[in-house]
Amino acid sequence: MPVGTLANVKTVTPEQLKPTGAQMVLANTYHLHLQPGEDIVAAAGGLHQFMGWDGPMLTDSGGFQVFSLSEMRTISEQGVKFRSPKDGRQINITPEESIRIQNQLGADVIMAFDECPPYPASREAVVVATDRTYRWLKRCREAHNRQDQALFGIVQGGVYLDLRAQAAAALRDLDLPGYAIGGVSVGEPPELIEKIVRATTPLLPEHKPRYLMGVGTYREMAQAIAAGMDLFDCVIPTRLARHGSALVQGERWNLKNARFRKDFAPLDPTCPCYTCQNFSRAYLCHLIHAKELLAFTLLSIHNITELVRFTQRIRAAILSDRFVDEFGPWLSGKTPVDE
Amino acid sequence: MPVGTLANVKTVTPEQLKPTGAQMVLANTYHLHLQPGEDIVAAAGGLHQFMGWDGPMLTDSGGFQVFSLSEMRTISEQGVKFRSPKDGRQINITPEESIRIQNQLGADVIMAFDECPPYPASREAVVVATDRTYRWLKRCREAHNRQDQALFGIVQGGVYLDLRAQAAAALRDLDLPGYAIGGVSVGEPPELIEKIVRATTPLLPEHKPRYLMGVGTYREMAQAIAAGMDLFDCVIPTRLARHGSALVQGERWNLKNARFRKDFAPLDPTCPCYTCQNFSRAYLCHLIHAKELLAFTLLSIHNITELVRFTQRIRAAILSDRFVDEFGPWLSGKTPVDE
Repeated sequence: MPVGTLANVKTVTPEQLKPTGAQMVLANTYHLHLQPGEDIVAAAGGLHQFMGWDGPMLTDSGGFQVFSLSEMRTISEQGVKFRSPKDGRQINITPEESIRIQNQLGADVIMAFDECPPYPASREAVVVATDRTYRWLKRCREAHNRQDQALFGIVQGGVYLDLRAQAAAALRDLDLPGYAIGGVSVGEPPELIEKIVRATTPLLPEHKPRYLMGVGTYREMAQAIAAGMDLFDCVIPTRLARHGSALVQGERWNLKNARFRKDFAPLDPTCPCYTCQNFSRAYLCHLIHAKELLAFTLLSIHNITELVRFTQRIRAAILSDRFVDEFGPWLSGKTPVDE
Repeated sequence: MPVGTLANVKTVTPEQLKPTGAQMVLANTYHLHLQPGEDIVAAAGGLHQFMGWDGPMLTDSGGFQVFSLSEMRTISEQGVKFRSPKDGRQINITPEESIRIQNQLGADVIMAFDECPPYPASREAVVVATDRTYRWLKRCREAHNRQDQALFGIVQGGVYLDLRAQAAAALRDLDLPGYAIGGVSVGEPPELIEKIVRATTPLLPEHKPRYLMGVGTYREMAQAIAAGMDLFDCVIPTRLARHGSALVQGERWNLKNARFRKDFAPLDPTCPCYTCQNFSRAYLCHLIHAKELLAFTLLSIHNITELVRFTQRIRAAILSDRFVDEFGPWLSGKTPVDE
């Protein structure tokens, strides 16, 4: 899922997003609550209508962003209080409030409001957060009132595999329409992410969508898919684009580099995206040097296409029983090329 | 002609530009000479290939930009010397050099290198500039060596109508493939622009394209078309977009205005553009407040479409003999709405 934080995938129109192959878009409840506010999105007819995306959508719960505010917020059993970084007004986000906002926003999948402990965190702190996340999930289920939105639960537990297992078992009993692993990619080393995902995914129902939150490099996705994960979201393709970088066959290229000045090949001759079909590396290099915003659009289109194609290749390999053969180097941690 | 200074119409892909109805794109020789350099554009196969625009293109001569450098340049009969604002290296642009660069860039229409006097300027200074522009035009014709590029001449003469008439007569004798009026919209009052255009256009051959350089508001275009002008270029639609403004039925709207926050109508319900067909004023207002670059793309698409439609309506009115009836208020200087 490309990330459309503020009801748009940065610099890319829905019309440009469609042919990338991306099927589902994520938007951020925290950001949309601050601006323009869920009342405006609801009055527009919901997120799909507001931003012109007729495909599936998911909103996160705001939990991750709220807990990232660190100093500026106070946590209680009730929920989280903080001051808006936009205008300083006090905001309370409780499980009920998160669901109310997400009901208003109207995505197809909504997420339970969770407490996401930082890394590193003591076992005691993670136990508190994991237990609270479970109680909050049950309040979210109570508060949720739209049949056309699927509420996913989130497994927390930090780097403590037994806490993850406990949380997964408890959630499993609630028979939710989908399950997520949250609280990874918060600063821990990549090996640890893989360990958590590999241990926790099999404990979640195989016939339900399983979603690894905030993850999306080549290697992370390959490893998570090997573990059984289905859904990912990540700002990498669009953020790299705004830094002038392209994802090309497993590598990251900085298009500002002088070696691209006279390189008239497309980024990737095998890529069907609009950018590769119409523009050269030299042109992208020029746009970046000239500080032309169009570079961000063209690189975003390519980068999203590239990561979606990567998952499409994995799907094809799985279906023909060639996954481990073809993607072995990604799975073993020995990437075939620099990432 | 939308302006694509650095080989792109800012924030708009060629695919998005096509349906706006814009047929021809202008690029700036001065800017492209500084970066990426005409050698790179030529090696890419020319401007069309480099930027992915398969419609007609025009390059200016660089004269206007070079003369705008004021303090930083020295003018002689030979040409203009200045230091690159990018890297400080000394650059000489002569008529021959301007044509050599434009031959390399490969647009369909190229412009003679001219001396564009500022406003205000003494009659003596304008006489010198106008005479030199004529001598430079003849050197440009000598230097020009591509049969597939049409070289247009430029009428200078400042606000002195007799000097304009003299210049027009001299150019007419050269039987060029097209003619431009330059050196307007350089700070003089609008009435004066209209006076110059009204007096000078009829002195240029009616069966050749006549191009009013750097002009493109509703009123300026209506008045210039009434005088007989055919071609215009202007940064207004894309620059306004980057300031968060939309051109709507003759008005300029600042989409940041709070009155649009809950306005779920399209910018213009009669407009066929991608933006109006898919997004609301409220959504554009949100994107601008959230500082999302996508706003620039969506507003540029609409603004270009709007100005092209304005000229299409004028064309239809002329063909059915209703031009003065329908566009009278624009022609008289009494605009029906604020511009």
